Order: sequence, then structure tokens, then C-alpha cells
Amino acid sequence: MNTHFDHAGVATDDAAELADLYADLFGLEIAHEEEFDGMRVVFVDCGNGYFELLEPLEDGTIAQYLDSHGAGIHHLALATGDLEGALERARASDVRLIDEEPRPGAWGHTVAFLHPADTGGVLLEFVEY
Amino acid sequence: MNTHFDHAGVATDDAAELADLYADLFGLEIAHEEEFDGMRVVFVDCGNGYFELLEPLEDGTIAQYLDSHGAGIHHLALATGDLEGALERARASDVRLIDEEPRPGAWGHTVAFLHPADTGGVLLEFVEY
Repeated sequence: MNTHFDHAGVATDDAAELADLYADLFGLEIAHEEEFDGMRVVFVDCGNGYFELLEPLEDGTIAQYLDSHGAGIHHLALATGDLEGALERARASDVRLIDEEPRPGAWGHTVAFLHPADTGGVLLEFVEY
Repeated sequence: MNTHFDHAGVATDDAAELADLYADLFGLEIAHEEEFDGMRVVFVDCGNGYFELLEPLEDGTIAQYLDSHGAGIHHLALATGDLEGALERARASDVRLIDEEPRPGAWGHTVAFLHPADTGGVLLEFVEY
């Protein structure tokens, strides 16, 4: 499986309301909901990827993002079949890693984030299913 | 064709350099480049969608975005087979439109933007091929 688009992470103060709006507006289905890492996380299925709506339930990265930036696009995630290899490739390109090692992410996936300062200001996440 | 993810638009001051980095880092191909509406626009192919890298060549929306926010994710685009219907649906949900009528976009597509204040702070674009 080649690297491909997986989801756009969106910071929001009401994930359920925004999920309903996106589902309605775009004719999409809510695929998955869970509480993870102090957040309510709702995935809205675009057919070829997801909106991942992130609502903080306690202080943390997303709560701080909402405080400083307001609601909006937080990150982009690419799916890969070889997360260790993808991180190796990033290191070889002198891209700093937020997660040096893969770690558990939402929906039971394994994830790692790259540092946005080295990727054009875009917070990028790798996801391995 | 149902609504699905088409691209993530990224504001950058060097689209060619960022395209090379993304292609390298993620093993992707550059699919298309053009000058459009005072911008250099480079599409990097994720297989199931694109990064649309937007570099301003003159003053305009993206130049102003870079000035106020710095480089990073600017918008998300969903492809639809019925752009007029999608705009009608947005109006029915009381979502304000930046473009009341579909207009020409990059790569010869037809596009319209929704107002981020009504979509959770996310600037969303519809694209019709």
C-alpha cells in the first residue's frame, strides 16, 4: 500500500455538532466515535478518507490549539503501510519528528507526527492501520 | 460520484521546493503545475487526492494569508459531481458562501468556497471536474 491521504484533523469545541453539519452538508456518514487521550474524536467518512473531528475534554494539545488559533484545520494525516520506514525516510531528509517512535493513535491505529517547521508549516501525521 | 476528498491547499512561499520535499518524503509524484490567478500552483498526487501547493506571485488571498498566518494548511477541498446542488444544500443549511456561483479554479476545474465561520473554522472548497 502506497502512502495516501487518510484524514484531515479538525480542532473543534463541539465534535458531535460539527460531525452532523459535515454529514448533512456533504452527504457523508459518521464512521466512528470514541474518547481518546482526553478528547472526543469523531470520524466522518469521505469515502476515500476522513474528517477527524477533535474536541478537547481536558487540557492538552487541542485545547491549547483552540485557545491560540481557534477552531479549524489542525493537521493532515497520510496512511502508510510502513510507518518505521516512513520515519526513517523523514530522518534521512532532516525532517524533525515529534514522535521518534510510532505510538497508539485514535481508532486503534499506530501514528507518528512530523515537526511542522520542517514540512512547510503543515502538521503531518503518519497513520498505519 | 459522491462527495469525496480532493485536496488540501497549502500556502507556501516556495511551491517547487515544498513539492519536491513532499514527493521525496512520501514517495509521491508531482501531477500538475501551472500559474493561476497570480499564484504558482503545484499538485502533488497522493493517489486518492492531492496536496495543492499555492505560492503567491503577486498580492492576493494567499499572499495575505502568508503575511498573517505564515505557511501552512489553507483549505480543504471536496470533489462533487453536482456543484450547483452542493451549493444549494449549503444554502439550505444556512452556510454562507464565499462564491455564490461556481467559478473557474486551478487545473481547469470549477470551484466554489464556503465561509469558514459557518463550517467550524475550516475553509472548504467544492471542486467539480
